[in-house]
Amino acid sequence: MLNYKNDVHGGDVERIAREYGFDPDDILDYSANINPLPLPDGMGEYIAKNLDVLRRYPDREYLELRNAIAAYEGITAEKIIVGNGATELIYLAVRALRPERVLIPAPSFGDYERAFTGMDTKVNFFPLREEDGFELDIESFLTELEKGCQMIILCNPNNPTGKLINIDKLNRIMLTAEKNGIWVILDETFLEFAPDRKKATALNIIKNYNNLFIVKAFTKFFAVPGLRLGYAIADPGLLANVMPYKEPWSVNAFASLLGPWFLKQKGFIKKSREWIMEERPFFIKSLKEVEGLKVFESQANFVLVKLTNPYWRVSGLKTALEGIGIMIRDAGSFRFLDENYFRLAIRERKKNLKLIGELDDLLQQYKS
Amino acid sequence: MLNYKNDVHGGDVERIAREYGFDPDDILDYSANINPLPLPDGMGEYIAKNLDVLRRYPDREYLELRNAIAAYEGITAEKIIVGNGATELIYLAVRALRPERVLIPAPSFGDYERAFTGMDTKVNFFPLREEDGFELDIESFLTELEKGCQMIILCNPNNPTGKLINIDKLNRIMLTAEKNGIWVILDETFLEFAPDRKKATALNIIKNYNNLFIVKAFTKFFAVPGLRLGYAIADPGLLANVMPYKEPWSVNAFASLLGPWFLKQKGFIKKSREWIMEERPFFIKSLKEVEGLKVFESQANFVLVKLTNPYWRVSGLKTALEGIGIMIRDAGSFRFLDENYFRLAIRERKKNLKLIGELDDLLQQYKS
Repeated sequence: MLNYKNDVHGGDVERIAREYGFDPDDILDYSANINPLPLPDGMGEYIAKNLDVLRRYPDREYLELRNAIAAYEGITAEKIIVGNGATELIYLAVRALRPERVLIPAPSFGDYERAFTGMDTKVNFFPLREEDGFELDIESFLTELEKGCQMIILCNPNNPTGKLINIDKLNRIMLTAEKNGIWVILDETFLEFAPDRKKATALNIIKNYNNLFIVKAFTKFFAVPGLRLGYAIADPGLLANVMPYKEPWSVNAFASLLGPWFLKQKGFIKKSREWIMEERPFFIKSLKEVEGLKVFESQANFVLVKLTNPYWRVSGLKTALEGIGIMIRDAGSFRFLDENYFRLAIRERKKNLKLIGELDDLLQQYKS
Repeated sequence: MLNYKNDVHGGDVERIAREYGFDPDDILDYSANINPLPLPDGMGEYIAKNLDVLRRYPDREYLELRNAIAAYEGITAEKIIVGNGATELIYLAVRALRPERVLIPAPSFGDYERAFTGMDTKVNFFPLREEDGFELDIESFLTELEKGCQMIILCNPNNPTGKLINIDKLNRIMLTAEKNGIWVILDETFLEFAPDRKKATALNIIKNYNNLFIVKAFTKFFAVPGLRLGYAIADPGLLANVMPYKEPWSVNAFASLLGPWFLKQKGFIKKSREWIMEERPFFIKSLKEVEGLKVFESQANFVLVKLTNPYWRVSGLKTALEGIGIMIRDAGSFRFLDENYFRLAIRERKKNLKLIGELDDLLQQYKS
């Protein structure tokens, strides 16, 4: 049995609202890494017009949905499978490929580890070090790969550190992985927010590798974690290997209906990119001005922060902020991090200023 | 690796519509076992008012949803977990409890078998015999249980045979199972349609057994297979054992929102019960009048039929009906059945008359 240190998630707005008596809509959620832009107009009408999709089982092949994703990503639909969020697809690959040993750079998303529950797989972690700014040390990582494992799971950019592995490094990892018979599960859930996303995506090299399983989701960029819609991109031969393990119809009819609709919202997509490119540098710069925090650079839509004010612990800061309706993500549950780390989503300017102001007020109340 | 003989499902309306150039809404689907009544009014407006549920991760505990189900079933919420249709919960129990040997009465739902993909479990089948009208022979079954297995999976009423195990027999099975350390997965997905559902449900005896895992779903009775919403009822200790294996947020926000709403649709529930109690006997009686068919009695919302006209095979009958926009479920993919069996959902009177008329026309074209 694995240790469930990592079985914690952000975004538990409903529970916090219940506990503190807030309306869920009034809570400032900095704990979940979601695009804060409002939903595109017209979705309600579109659903109301298509309620009858509920009356049928979803198309088991999800052909329309996969075709829409294929057109968006510029690849063919035979390389795509869809799932109940990226999470289902990661669990699926793990269950189907069943490695003897897996290597996961950490800190990273806790469900990678949790996906091995009940399996005999030896789950090992490759430490990302604070002194490297949590960048992956590619040389030692490649050396480690030569020592034997059958799977690695990479998050790019990585959650919670925000660090991106560039395409050259990724290609070196893929070459070593291929040579050593290693499956690579690559989670690009946050890549849509990265500055160099078009250069950075492994879609550029997927045709060269049949051991690469890229996972993406609508959750973060389209800001619909409630929809549960993700997809995986891989060589059709690899997909054929995992399909026998897939539970049928895991994407519900609304998600299947709305996927293609979201991909057509060009205005939303453009505005989202403009927002993150402008807001990320501002957010990081402003946070850095708060005394008592160490802020790590990020290529994602969230920022890892270390509390350096010795009068505070993250648990206390979190409780104080919850009391005024602000949620942050205690990052102490991530492997190799401790009670001094937390993670903040990047949101809209006005809210960011409010958060940073409150953080500053709290930290300046007690300081050395 | 298991044999995927059973990896076939009804309800693939989208594919048939694509193949024959029909509008999916014009197809008469007798292949999926779904309540044919129209959706209750007001659902579109209710969703449109609550679109923001998409913006948050679903409550990981699904507390409102579980409370609503608890009230409907007359039990406490701690005995309930929710899932992406009954299917997810069956796969979950199998993965978590991981028996060495499982015994499944068959023919039955193919995904029971498929849930063991990639596991070392020995999957054995207890044959339901045509000469018994596909009723479970309780005495031989109990004897078989004494011979050693760790799990049984029962469908009640059973798909595709329509046969119900009454509560006394069920209790005898439970006693033997308990004595022999056997988990019982009991699929009551179709029980809402049964004449004696209140007497027949294992909810009456669940407090006596911590080895019983009852699975139910909104799919069939509320006619929303696209929603993907099911639940399991079991002793909290058993639920605690399976929860570490559960993927998070598998029920999407719309499903979580609509579950409680459906359970409040008293008019729909009442009308549905009246429809099935009136239509089932009429449908079976009318089918029996068609020459060339052997019709099995059913306590569910579907009927198993054997083709006895020697000039026809089900494959030919199916193709002929598809050509006029009617789908039936070839039951040859069910274990122990062959190319002479098919399954028909029960629908509205007018459509049933049309189906039966077309069946009669086709069968009378060629006969001995």
